[in-house]
Amino acid sequence: MAQKPSIPKGTRDFGPVETARRNYIFSTVSEVFRLFGYAQIETPAMENLSTLLGKYGDEGDKLLFKILNSGDAFADIDPGMLEDSNALAMKVCEKGLRYDLTVPFARFVVQHQNDIHFPFKRFQIQPVWRADRPQKGRYREFCQCDVDVVGSRSLLYELELVQIVDMVFERLGIDVCIKINNRKLLAGLAEVAGAADKMIDITVAIDKIDKIGLEAVKEELRGKGLTEEAISVIEPVLLLKGDNESKTAQMSRILASSETGMKGIAEISELFSLIASAGIRQKVELDLSLARGLNYYTGAIFEVKALDFEIGSICGGGRYDDLTGIFGLKDVSGVGISFGADRIYDVLLGLDKYPSSLGNAPDVLFANMGREAVAYVMPLCNRLREKGFSVVIFPDESKLGKQFDYAARNSIPFISINADSEAAAGTINLKNLARGVQQTFAKDDVEAMSDFLRKA
Amino acid sequence: MAQKPSIPKGTRDFGPVETARRNYIFSTVSEVFRLFGYAQIETPAMENLSTLLGKYGDEGDKLLFKILNSGDAFADIDPGMLEDSNALAMKVCEKGLRYDLTVPFARFVVQHQNDIHFPFKRFQIQPVWRADRPQKGRYREFCQCDVDVVGSRSLLYELELVQIVDMVFERLGIDVCIKINNRKLLAGLAEVAGAADKMIDITVAIDKIDKIGLEAVKEELRGKGLTEEAISVIEPVLLLKGDNESKTAQMSRILASSETGMKGIAEISELFSLIASAGIRQKVELDLSLARGLNYYTGAIFEVKALDFEIGSICGGGRYDDLTGIFGLKDVSGVGISFGADRIYDVLLGLDKYPSSLGNAPDVLFANMGREAVAYVMPLCNRLREKGFSVVIFPDESKLGKQFDYAARNSIPFISINADSEAAAGTINLKNLARGVQQTFAKDDVEAMSDFLRKA
Repeated sequence: MAQKPSIPKGTRDFGPVETARRNYIFSTVSEVFRLFGYAQIETPAMENLSTLLGKYGDEGDKLLFKILNSGDAFADIDPGMLEDSNALAMKVCEKGLRYDLTVPFARFVVQHQNDIHFPFKRFQIQPVWRADRPQKGRYREFCQCDVDVVGSRSLLYELELVQIVDMVFERLGIDVCIKINNRKLLAGLAEVAGAADKMIDITVAIDKIDKIGLEAVKEELRGKGLTEEAISVIEPVLLLKGDNESKTAQMSRILASSETGMKGIAEISELFSLIASAGIRQKVELDLSLARGLNYYTGAIFEVKALDFEIGSICGGGRYDDLTGIFGLKDVSGVGISFGADRIYDVLLGLDKYPSSLGNAPDVLFANMGREAVAYVMPLCNRLREKGFSVVIFPDESKLGKQFDYAARNSIPFISINADSEAAAGTINLKNLARGVQQTFAKDDVEAMSDFLRKA
Repeated sequence: MAQKPSIPKGTRDFGPVETARRNYIFSTVSEVFRLFGYAQIETPAMENLSTLLGKYGDEGDKLLFKILNSGDAFADIDPGMLEDSNALAMKVCEKGLRYDLTVPFARFVVQHQNDIHFPFKRFQIQPVWRADRPQKGRYREFCQCDVDVVGSRSLLYELELVQIVDMVFERLGIDVCIKINNRKLLAGLAEVAGAADKMIDITVAIDKIDKIGLEAVKEELRGKGLTEEAISVIEPVLLLKGDNESKTAQMSRILASSETGMKGIAEISELFSLIASAGIRQKVELDLSLARGLNYYTGAIFEVKALDFEIGSICGGGRYDDLTGIFGLKDVSGVGISFGADRIYDVLLGLDKYPSSLGNAPDVLFANMGREAVAYVMPLCNRLREKGFSVVIFPDESKLGKQFDYAARNSIPFISINADSEAAAGTINLKNLARGVQQTFAKDDVEAMSDFLRKA
């Protein structure tokens, strides 16, 4: 016997149950995106490497899956080229697999700019590929769900994304905390501390305060070259407490002398005020330690954590003022977030929040009682399907035990056994296996059968 | 300015309209598959090349997209290896992109055989990649929709696939002809003609009869080495006329001496009888020229053509008795069909059969009449969204002309303009732009507004 086949490490098969669960997540987020006027687009799995390279840093470039040119990829390669693996790879590979949905989206906007009306609201749910070392919870193929609007600086869109997050997790039944930061606050803080070039060091330090404590953070800031004076400016931020309003007020005093900082204060105050008027149900929190994507976000930064399940952030994003600039289209500001489908999958599973029926099991099995009995039930099966029920007929005239077993293994709740006597009487039996409830119907009374299937 | 970015040849971007149309096709077929008890699965885009190679013939092997190993793919390559491009490609690439959904499905069944209950009914809708020369209607990335059942030889499943095809095209509003053949008929014919090794030549000849006529076909058969006696056995098949029943009766006389042929007759007669009892609405036709996939189909062969639109087959499949044998699992018979989403897309477009609204435009635009007016409508927007309406608020307090223009460009049918006076009166205006119908509602009367949005 041949060796049992396998799939590449870091990739996964999704069977019927997993696929139904994933579809539940995708259809929930898609429906919410639609309710806010976002339209779905799709881009190819393969992009030109020239589109992808240099967009994710050196580490990202290494994690791109490259596709060997078709035809004879090595025709013009001379042996000397083997000395530079990287250059050789670029020579024999012109295409790569999509690494995220952001760069392809930027490419899409620039390429189709004449067909797009701004502000352009789009969402995209597609797999991405990264040649990361596979480990628990980290895959080489995984799915991203991105929702973005480009071509407007209106803070109403920041609000809209918060509303989308709120509605998605309400519908999924997950309690979350929506953490919000603004890069302008961090830039302003670095500025008032007289360390404008140390914004990232400062943010990383803020992020560590809960883990390592105030003294260790201050020590770390010293190690990064910050003066005692700078640290004294930063210290009250490290100790910031209270609700969003009070935190914002404290920050406003600290940042008073920084134009950028005060712009950040204005933005975040306006966003919190919009959030209050929109009636957000989930927890929303100003979190100055959010440093996510600090190299390209220019305004708001978002991150979402599940409250009752220990896992990294399940959603994140922010405002970027120059996403499409990398492809030559300047001044297209955008804001977007990405839902981490794989982590949301794990949270729903861990909290047992999947709906009990995800529609992946048939509703009724019609037992196979022979050729004529099958012909008798066939028209009814069609009519029940037209009513939306998933109906299967057992493929062979097997022993009833085997047919019941099939229903049980496939989680089919109803079985219908009709032989010559039912055909003669013009009746149909339906039985709910788990509850033992059984009823007999006139063969044309599809309405009554539908009611029974829905309620029994 | 940077060069305008592009995508690899043979690939496509799908904008909002195309994506909505494609989703309409995918959701229609998915729903029908579900009604017949098929469950969705997904497999990774990348498979081990060892899984893919040798399964599609030499030509197919050349059309596989290979993925360069991550890390330093060329580390152990010595210059001599450049002489054999093919061997080198295999050395530096262990993975390839999925070429179809059939081989990954076979691999899935074998790999997960202990978790699967047979008969296993699955469908799969995913892109596949082929390094074909791109041309009109032929892409390097395209989507397949496959539905298969494995682990049973029951002809009820052949019927079920015909029913699925029937329901899908009824729902899509496309009139089709479902052509059916059976490999055993072709094998039997070759046998009674004394040319068992010439089955494919004979089938190809039958396929040409309408295009080149009887004499040319006979000439071609002579060229393939068939004797006059063999040709005289085949000739009545070339001239076969009449309905399915009469054709089957004629074939039955011709194949009387072939056990395989008569098995084919029994299968096809039973299938036509089942089709009659199931009430298929689309045209069904025995077509002995169907040679599709003759190298692996062992029983029924299906092909579907649109009646009112000139394009190749839009759907095809058949019975295979040993799909999983290539991975070491013997005797798992299956039958399946594949829907060609790209061609169905073109047929729907050509026949203007897409629903007028595909749900990709928002339902209502709330004009932005300033900060307070926005706060006034915000709770209502949420309530309308909870009712299922797609609602957008214009991002800025721009001139109304610009806001109307946004509604027009985005095909938004309703606009709602509410300023201080409406807020003071507690009312909401809704206007259908195309029909000029306008109505004023109490701000809490979401039911009446919903009715208006549905009907106006």
